[in-house]
Amino acid sequence: MGEFSTADHRFMARAIQLAKRGLYTTDPNPRVGCVIVRFDSSEQGCVVGEGYHERAGEPHAEVHALKAAGSAAQGATAYVTLEPCSHTGRTGPCAVALAQAGVARVVVAMKDPNPQVSGGGIAHLKTAGIQVQVGLLEADARALNPGFISRMERQRPFVRLKMAMSLDGRTAMGSGESQWITGPQARAQVQRLRARSSAILSGVESVIMDDSRLTLRADQLALANADDIAQRQPLRVILDSRLRLPLAAACLREPGRTLIITTDQHSEEKRRKLAAAGAEIKVLPAEAGRIALADMLRWLAENEQVNELLVETGATLAGALLEANLVDELQLFIAPTLLGGEARPLFALPGIIQMADQKRLTIKESRTVGQDWWIIATPHAD
Amino acid sequence: MGEFSTADHRFMARAIQLAKRGLYTTDPNPRVGCVIVRFDSSEQGCVVGEGYHERAGEPHAEVHALKAAGSAAQGATAYVTLEPCSHTGRTGPCAVALAQAGVARVVVAMKDPNPQVSGGGIAHLKTAGIQVQVGLLEADARALNPGFISRMERQRPFVRLKMAMSLDGRTAMGSGESQWITGPQARAQVQRLRARSSAILSGVESVIMDDSRLTLRADQLALANADDIAQRQPLRVILDSRLRLPLAAACLREPGRTLIITTDQHSEEKRRKLAAAGAEIKVLPAEAGRIALADMLRWLAENEQVNELLVETGATLAGALLEANLVDELQLFIAPTLLGGEARPLFALPGIIQMADQKRLTIKESRTVGQDWWIIATPHAD
Repeated sequence: MGEFSTADHRFMARAIQLAKRGLYTTDPNPRVGCVIVRFDSSEQGCVVGEGYHERAGEPHAEVHALKAAGSAAQGATAYVTLEPCSHTGRTGPCAVALAQAGVARVVVAMKDPNPQVSGGGIAHLKTAGIQVQVGLLEADARALNPGFISRMERQRPFVRLKMAMSLDGRTAMGSGESQWITGPQARAQVQRLRARSSAILSGVESVIMDDSRLTLRADQLALANADDIAQRQPLRVILDSRLRLPLAAACLREPGRTLIITTDQHSEEKRRKLAAAGAEIKVLPAEAGRIALADMLRWLAENEQVNELLVETGATLAGALLEANLVDELQLFIAPTLLGGEARPLFALPGIIQMADQKRLTIKESRTVGQDWWIIATPHAD
Repeated sequence: MGEFSTADHRFMARAIQLAKRGLYTTDPNPRVGCVIVRFDSSEQGCVVGEGYHERAGEPHAEVHALKAAGSAAQGATAYVTLEPCSHTGRTGPCAVALAQAGVARVVVAMKDPNPQVSGGGIAHLKTAGIQVQVGLLEADARALNPGFISRMERQRPFVRLKMAMSLDGRTAMGSGESQWITGPQARAQVQRLRARSSAILSGVESVIMDDSRLTLRADQLALANADDIAQRQPLRVILDSRLRLPLAAACLREPGRTLIITTDQHSEEKRRKLAAAGAEIKVLPAEAGRIALADMLRWLAENEQVNELLVETGATLAGALLEANLVDELQLFIAPTLLGGEARPLFALPGIIQMADQKRLTIKESRTVGQDWWIIATPHAD
């Protein structure tokens, strides 16, 4: 990165910090930050405008920053965490706005991951005679939007699998009783994982067992703007191949949408009743009687714009996603307790017969949260 | 501890450090360190002799330190991590030796935990006109000898349960295959746990499954004096209520003793054959066909002078010890891998039916060792 100065790094780091303010609110748009800096009075640079994208339908980061800078944008450098858009969305193309404001140089952390438009914004800026540099703090910029990038590049969501477990790898008693293995701080972190996700996925078995609500609860988020965040409830997605979800299920009475994904094995009557109870129902292809998981993920990305998908479910669905290499990140909350060999396992992984079949993980982060541990890991692809 | 000066703390800390040099070699004796200090030329004090107990049958720490100090011990202060003995063992009573050498003051970290002799050495010193102070860094001094103290105070060993597991709490494949879940650094730590233990306990099922040798291997200890340490092989104790251990078991051909604990359910013929193959056999009381665990531990302490007992076994025996509240410390080595729900569980804990029955742990230490985690935890008593 010899082409970037220390000041460049500093301002792009600031733009990334600004982008993070949209962590819980931009969905389905990406989190983007922008800083506009003048270098004429000082080599250190002087910030004349800042902005971030807060919410879909509201202005993009660049628009906020340009508005703050006003005429000071003339001849300035703009730092943007994502390539400025060149298409006319709800707020007009940002590349055009930057050129019209007269900025002299644009530093972009990463290109647009959408292959349909990637490079278009940069080309527009260059055509307007603006100096453009790409790739500063790219890894950090990508980390802002794992789901948006996955949806654009792989046509499926970024899949995060959360499990709360005892130290001996158990998630519930044999009876299904599981409240609570982990402490309130760990549960608040789970709420924040829900808050940043477009959707929460669970298997019908788990939903029935826990009568799960799968909602965001403002009072448990422990964030300053919790009420604002909880305005948007992540889409609840329940895999239910034969429509076994009870009509009295708690999640059907919560704010936000409940989408049941099923197969053609269901009864039409139950379907009508669930729809009347407020559920949306989608029939997707099955494989050996079960919903085809890769197809289901692709459908969620394409039709529901699901960027980050949080999976909160039991051992069978969790194990099936892992075995199919469809889990991008494991979020494990581990309590310092033992539940014993009769309790429910973390993962059914019937494909593992020998040690050679084991599923190795890379631990990305591990820290304590209250009395519990929080481990973020990436499964190795087979 | 207002009665102790900064210098006192410093010298006792040094004595504890010296005692640790005997960690792997003093068995069945306690680890003890001694520092002799003169304060006449400086308030800071000047060490004139140091010593530690290295090996049963060899001199105690005080004897080494007094020998190093020579006539300088006259009027000096002796710091000892354990009350000096007043009984005539193989090396003569240390309390007498300290008095004869003319020390003016003795600082003792902890009283002798043996109720039969506790306080005797201190009384002898006081009678000889020596100033005695007790209790400096007592917790650290106790931590040197959890096994010796347990044997003296509770008439049973300090029981350390070691398990190597995957992140989903599995110790082996369904087939029993388990080599290796954890990496070489974790296994070297297990070798050191063996080296500090008087005995290693396993159930016959595990020994058969792995054809376990249960030995100390000098080349895996990764310690400077490994060959010296591995001269003493911890006693191998196998619980085998019906004498199912094969005559060809690898552990019977290893240096050191193999003690099989059985019940009166065994065949006399197999007993003769195992004895001929080198095993020692002890019949102990059974409870519902199984060896009574608390009785077994008491017997090992009383008859085999077992201080620290390392348990390396499967889910059934490990679970039974835990349920009986006979585990003092858990040593868990956790590898960043998943083995799935068909793999063998960490603990059979059939007594846990509801969440309210869960076995809570206090985590004393957690660190990384190679690619793995090493967690030391204490189970809460029911």
